[in-house]
Amino acid sequence: MDIGGTRTRVAALEQGQIKARRSFPTQSLVELKVGLDQVLQEAGWAKPQAIGVAAAGPVDMRSGQLLNPPNLPPGMRTASVGTELQATFGCPVYVANDATTAAIGELEYGHKAQDFVYITWSTGIGGGIVCGGRVVWGATGQAGEIGHMVIRPRGPRCGCGKRGCLEALAGGAGLAKAARRRFGQAISARELVTLAQKGNPQALELVKTACQAMGQAVALLWELLEPELFVFGGGFTGSWDLLAPRVLEAARPLARGSLRLAVTPLGDDVGLLGASALWKHISPDWGALQAGRVRTPG
Amino acid sequence: MDIGGTRTRVAALEQGQIKARRSFPTQSLVELKVGLDQVLQEAGWAKPQAIGVAAAGPVDMRSGQLLNPPNLPPGMRTASVGTELQATFGCPVYVANDATTAAIGELEYGHKAQDFVYITWSTGIGGGIVCGGRVVWGATGQAGEIGHMVIRPRGPRCGCGKRGCLEALAGGAGLAKAARRRFGQAISARELVTLAQKGNPQALELVKTACQAMGQAVALLWELLEPELFVFGGGFTGSWDLLAPRVLEAARPLARGSLRLAVTPLGDDVGLLGASALWKHISPDWGALQAGRVRTPG
Repeated sequence: MDIGGTRTRVAALEQGQIKARRSFPTQSLVELKVGLDQVLQEAGWAKPQAIGVAAAGPVDMRSGQLLNPPNLPPGMRTASVGTELQATFGCPVYVANDATTAAIGELEYGHKAQDFVYITWSTGIGGGIVCGGRVVWGATGQAGEIGHMVIRPRGPRCGCGKRGCLEALAGGAGLAKAARRRFGQAISARELVTLAQKGNPQALELVKTACQAMGQAVALLWELLEPELFVFGGGFTGSWDLLAPRVLEAARPLARGSLRLAVTPLGDDVGLLGASALWKHISPDWGALQAGRVRTPG
Repeated sequence: MDIGGTRTRVAALEQGQIKARRSFPTQSLVELKVGLDQVLQEAGWAKPQAIGVAAAGPVDMRSGQLLNPPNLPPGMRTASVGTELQATFGCPVYVANDATTAAIGELEYGHKAQDFVYITWSTGIGGGIVCGGRVVWGATGQAGEIGHMVIRPRGPRCGCGKRGCLEALAGGAGLAKAARRRFGQAISARELVTLAQKGNPQALELVKTACQAMGQAVALLWELLEPELFVFGGGFTGSWDLLAPRVLEAARPLARGSLRLAVTPLGDDVGLLGASALWKHISPDWGALQAGRVRTPG
């Protein structure tokens, strides 16, 4: 399952094939369990082999506990998803943050590159890093926070409290804020992009500034990790023709290698597919701890 | 062996213990072979099991060929180190860039953290990344170029041709350039740091600016990779008491986690020790290609 800020997707998957699926507004654990029951029934399964959960981070990788993710509704923020689902469905439950999980989806079912960076470009900006076919988790599983790399130390305030994070410069919420300042009225990132596509020079300028920040991030990620590919997902990929050339134009002079940008072929299912393969890519230590959080009977 | 811009170190190592060692100015392949012969004789070995070579990059990881590294003297730049040593000494020879090799040294014999970033802070700035106990090589082995992350797109010109790279802002050569502009006379990075230690306000300001760039890099590396530790090597670690607090002060507001900086306990031997363990950490594909570059008789 993929627990997003507004919607949750649940599916029964067998070797990457979706047998049954449901999607509903993210509210509380109750809806999750109902959704799981429904897809199990539809798939004709008594019980899942394992449940993989992608959730808006941060997630404590040892317990699978959500650490009060700001982007989830209050009813979900402190929910003991792993413990509860494991007790109810009697199978191991693995939980990880959604951007890393999306990278796993891309690794298993998308471009299948061995060295790539996955970037969710949406209201916020998240990321997952794969090096040599392995997920980069970080010391406690918090790696991949591409959106919170500080690109301009004196830049605009980010939701995380810092200044000049990539997310504040190029994320949807940051862009909407910049647009309000520029146009003197509330305007969403989507509306701004549409205006830019129609050739509005002020909108184009704001979009270009966002693409410059994203380009700088892409370039420095290339120098650090030498990925063969950058894979993008999230709402902004709907305006790829407008954005990709501008990101590349900004990034090229800042990196010494060839940059390849692509959109995930998996669309909104990337996180769901990744969640289904999480058992395979979670580090063995965390996997054992998460699966062992409830001693299942028998 | 560790082929540096000015000196080359050669040693006979057995399980991380140095049996014999030599150090001489980097010139050409001739001196390398003589040095190897000497340490072999002193160690009482007929032939090494394997030779690991750390060299100023870039290195073609499939062939182990040096790709004209700008920091090596002309006689070494295009030398076929791998092929020549393999033919002469009849054992597999593995070649990799010196910053990555230093990270391997640190992983095997230093702090032994499983998730860390190694940073060589010297005339130039290099890096090696270890995630989950594994070296991050990148698609073709060029990852870890921390010095060439662009921190300030309109900053000073870097030796690589780009502007505002970390190396141009905080490396010894960049710092010397900035000092010449400020003081109106040639002054080395070492002299500048000594002046700063004595409390010269202009020197302190230049050092602070360099530390700010390093701090910004450290912070964004933390957000990306969540290392448990940043390990520093190179000449600047000789002034650690001056630099470390300033780097931390700059980094802390830009990262959301706790940052630990340390100096490698291995000193100038970190690359040499890493080279001796390169066979273990080179990706199997490249290792096989490099070891297979000359069919050794028998």
